[in-house]
Amino acid sequence: MLKGYTTPRTPKGTSSIAPMPPWHYVGTCLAIEYEADPGSVAAFLPEGLDFHSPRCAVYFVEWQFATDSGEEYLDPIRSQYRETIFLVSAAFEGKPYAFCPFIWVDQDTALMRGLAQGWPKQIGSTWITHAHDLPSVAGPVNGPGGKFGASLAVKDRRLAEGVVTLREETNSLPNPSFAGAINVRHFPELAAGLHDAPAVHELVQLKSRDVRISPIWKGDAELKVFDHPCLELPDLRPVKVFAGYRFSCTLTVDDVVVLRSLKRSA
Amino acid sequence: MLKGYTTPRTPKGTSSIAPMPPWHYVGTCLAIEYEADPGSVAAFLPEGLDFHSPRCAVYFVEWQFATDSGEEYLDPIRSQYRETIFLVSAAFEGKPYAFCPFIWVDQDTALMRGLAQGWPKQIGSTWITHAHDLPSVAGPVNGPGGKFGASLAVKDRRLAEGVVTLREETNSLPNPSFAGAINVRHFPELAAGLHDAPAVHELVQLKSRDVRISPIWKGDAELKVFDHPCLELPDLRPVKVFAGYRFSCTLTVDDVVVLRSLKRSA
Amino acid sequence: MLKGYTTPRTPKGTSSIAPMPPWHYVGTCLAIEYEADPGSVAAFLPEGLDFHSPRCAVYFVEWQFATDSGEEYLDPIRSQYRETIFLVSAAFEGKPYAFCPFIWVDQDTALMRGLAQGWPKQIGSTWITHAHDLPSVAGPVNGPGGKFGASLAVKDRRLAEGVVTLREETNSLPNPSFAGAINVRHFPELAAGLHDAPAVHELVQLKSRDVRISPIWKGDAELKVFDHPCLELPDLRPVKVFAGYRFSCTLTVDDVVVLRSLKRSA
Amino acid sequence: MLKGYTTPRTPKGTSSIAPMPPWHYVGTCLAIEYEADPGSVAAFLPEGLDFHSPRCAVYFVEWQFATDSGEEYLDPIRSQYRETIFLVSAAFEGKPYAFCPFIWVDQDTALMRGLAQGWPKQIGSTWITHAHDLPSVAGPVNGPGGKFGASLAVKDRRLAEGVVTLREETNSLPNPSFAGAINVRHFPELAAGLHDAPAVHELVQLKSRDVRISPIWKGDAELKVFDHPCLELPDLRPVKVFAGYRFSCTLTVDDVVVLRSLKRSA
Repeated sequence: MLKGYTTPRTPKGTSSIAPMPPWHYVGTCLAIEYEADPGSVAAFLPEGLDFHSPRCAVYFVEWQFATDSGEEYLDPIRSQYRETIFLVSAAFEGKPYAFCPFIWVDQDTALMRGLAQGWPKQIGSTWITHAHDLPSVAGPVNGPGGKFGASLAVKDRRLAEGVVTLREETNSLPNPSFAGAINVRHFPELAAGLHDAPAVHELVQLKSRDVRISPIWKGDAELKVFDHPCLELPDLRPVKVFAGYRFSCTLTVDDVVVLRSLKRSA
Repeated sequence: MLKGYTTPRTPKGTSSIAPMPPWHYVGTCLAIEYEADPGSVAAFLPEGLDFHSPRCAVYFVEWQFATDSGEEYLDPIRSQYRETIFLVSAAFEGKPYAFCPFIWVDQDTALMRGLAQGWPKQIGSTWITHAHDLPSVAGPVNGPGGKFGASLAVKDRRLAEGVVTLREETNSLPNPSFAGAINVRHFPELAAGLHDAPAVHELVQLKSRDVRISPIWKGDAELKVFDHPCLELPDLRPVKVFAGYRFSCTLTVDDVVVLRSLKRSA
Repeated sequence: MLKGYTTPRTPKGTSSIAPMPPWHYVGTCLAIEYEADPGSVAAFLPEGLDFHSPRCAVYFVEWQFATDSGEEYLDPIRSQYRETIFLVSAAFEGKPYAFCPFIWVDQDTALMRGLAQGWPKQIGSTWITHAHDLPSVAGPVNGPGGKFGASLAVKDRRLAEGVVTLREETNSLPNPSFAGAINVRHFPELAAGLHDAPAVHELVQLKSRDVRISPIWKGDAELKVFDHPCLELPDLRPVKVFAGYRFSCTLTVDDVVVLRSLKRSA
Repeated sequence: MLKGYTTPRTPKGTSSIAPMPPWHYVGTCLAIEYEADPGSVAAFLPEGLDFHSPRCAVYFVEWQFATDSGEEYLDPIRSQYRETIFLVSAAFEGKPYAFCPFIWVDQDTALMRGLAQGWPKQIGSTWITHAHDLPSVAGPVNGPGGKFGASLAVKDRRLAEGVVTLREETNSLPNPSFAGAINVRHFPELAAGLHDAPAVHELVQLKSRDVRISPIWKGDAELKVFDHPCLELPDLRPVKVFAGYRFSCTLTVDDVVVLRSLKRSA
């Protein structure tokens, strides 16, 4: 009798690429709000979501993950990962939501947990400036004037980079925001004739719980998205850049709500 | 209208982690046949497969991949990957097959194509000795006396290593062999209450086509599998090591046959 | 006229692997004090240093680096690196100092700046638990009860790992401490007959300046050093483990003092 | 008594980042001859070398390395590395030589052996198409019509990429060629006031021995060099691209000849 939330499923069930939920996360986010071309944003929305606004955001995040009693963070290569999330605005049944067209992580366990949640994760390399409580020429403090950079590369090509200069505390998270995003859970068929008829294809909403947010710092931002021979991220490049943000957050994931099936009727 | 064989699905469909099949592969394999504890082998078999023998094999492979007209191998970071495959023997309806309990690759595109085929891929680091046609203290030729090493590490821990010394050509591939393996396609649910009821769970057989094999060299082999705090590979460690092999092969993947559903009836 | 503190030296001088000093650093250290076999510690000391005590320490550090006006931390892949430093106790002219037998970093610029200072740096993979100000199952806060892990791997082999549980603030840094360590600057000859007669071979003391330390947390610790086929770190493995520490520090490097030449007279 | 060709020097001498020479190498090269701006080529030459021609070459190489009896290639992560070498033409005392302004490798041991030889090595990521003896959509054979790609990235930025299409065998190596290149051995001082007065600074010629070359394939080539915020490689970008080449070679390194000191007289 094999056990495990994902493959590989094994006798003891301790080998799976992603363990059984709940999954607890804590991380620090550097975020930039921006506006992309409205037609491009609309073109990236899946069936079931309507265009809401050209407002986008990118989050560069250093996460740490653990299960209920796993203490995975004590063997941090099993727990830590860095992530770049792009979000666009969307409407579902007339209400505004975030939708994620692109997301990159640097660990397989994060990729697999993401696929289960409908995040379209790929492997990419994210780097983010660290803050320390000591003033230094070598880095910022988390406060007024603190400058933070971040970059994303995919398969040895720089794809995006940004800089945020903090100015003041705020009460508002960046918008769109990832905690209640609408995702598409999708898993393909490989049998001949079914390559266009995925086994799983459904619009879902994340039900993150126990979300807690640190004080939120806000300031000025710059963001560049670079050309790429096949990845379509440049179609969502900024036409205007708004504010930058820095904050920490913690949340738990063990549920999604299916909003509607995207499978074609036979 | 979004396109793409896997997520992310996008307007042009050129951003997916894995492109639309067929997928063409060419690679060079260093393989070691061995025997594990029979009870352990039996314990790793999924529902639907029966114990056949304690015979196992590990394949360390450097692959190159392309789509029909993509020429991905010209941007080799998009095409190449290294893989370690462990296979055990199994029987389905009385006939012998290979089943894969563990497999590691070093690229996300390979991981995703693998999940679609039912390979339980995780990210790992594989290294394999290269041959050259020039005699050198720095490496073997592909012929009598040629010594080849390989290693697998997962999240900064050495998990397996082997050495093969070639002796003579043979007409037989190592056994078990990966081309017609039986896999389990599996994709979890995340909705509360369904964590044990995967959305996809089915026994499938690979239908690799256009398989061509180079001359096959055979010889002596050593294989070590090291302890690990959670991965169960050490339960399949060698109790006897048989022959080692080296060969190249090419094959195309665009089909699987579903043998039976593993979903529980409600 | 080529420019650059190190190779490659180029027309504009902006391509060197390590830029012109001063080098400013800020980082967070997880440290463990321990005792090794006294004979082993003595055996690792270079000519010119005498045995002082079997007291050792390991530091797992996440650093960020910048030059005076370079703001390298805004492109953090050019600034950040993770490091594992092993220090042993030594005496020079009767006074106690730290000496570094082994150190691993994960960036070439850090390796090269290290060689210039006499740190015997190699490339290795270090992972360290992150703290956040938010209580979470996924990670510790920097205070009483906070548990932090760290690991070192070299060329796909786990070499060391430790865990520290913080208990209380202290006024004392771990001992031995790296800021005023004695190093050996060494650069080989390659001309035939001179492989044993290095071009540079001298005992130096670091002159780190502008050192500032955060509050220092102290607690319990565990430390394991694993076997390796050629690296001699296991000869310095712990026979007793003392306290663990966590603190941040900032410092500037642009000077060393030569204590004595280690070159043989002709 | 500590031993080791380079740091770290240890009681047994088996821990050094680079072992005692001789160093034996075998590898496969994809090379592209091209012409850069003559003034730029001249500007990259060190004191002691004169301008000869604007002819340059880039070599993308997969190497394997071993010592006399070390068999390092059996633990291939200790032996293999990938390298991108840029060479320009130069004259020394009226005769033509190759000089290397930039070179990137992906292993620390290769970097350190390089520094001892005067190669200005940095860490970079090189990828090169593999050939197989089996015809495949997924890759070329080493013969007429075989297409090979290669890329170089440094700290998550694509810096160069090329494609070679083989046409016919030739008797000539690409020019300039690396086996007898003139390098600059350089090691900095860090003591205050001496940052511009390196401890080692000398023009040397490599004395590679036992060089053997496989059949050499030649054909058409393309080469792109991309912009970079600080690395000056784009100043040597191609204005004309000549032929491409593919061949294997083996050689041994344990000697250099000092041509002249580049240290300033006091």
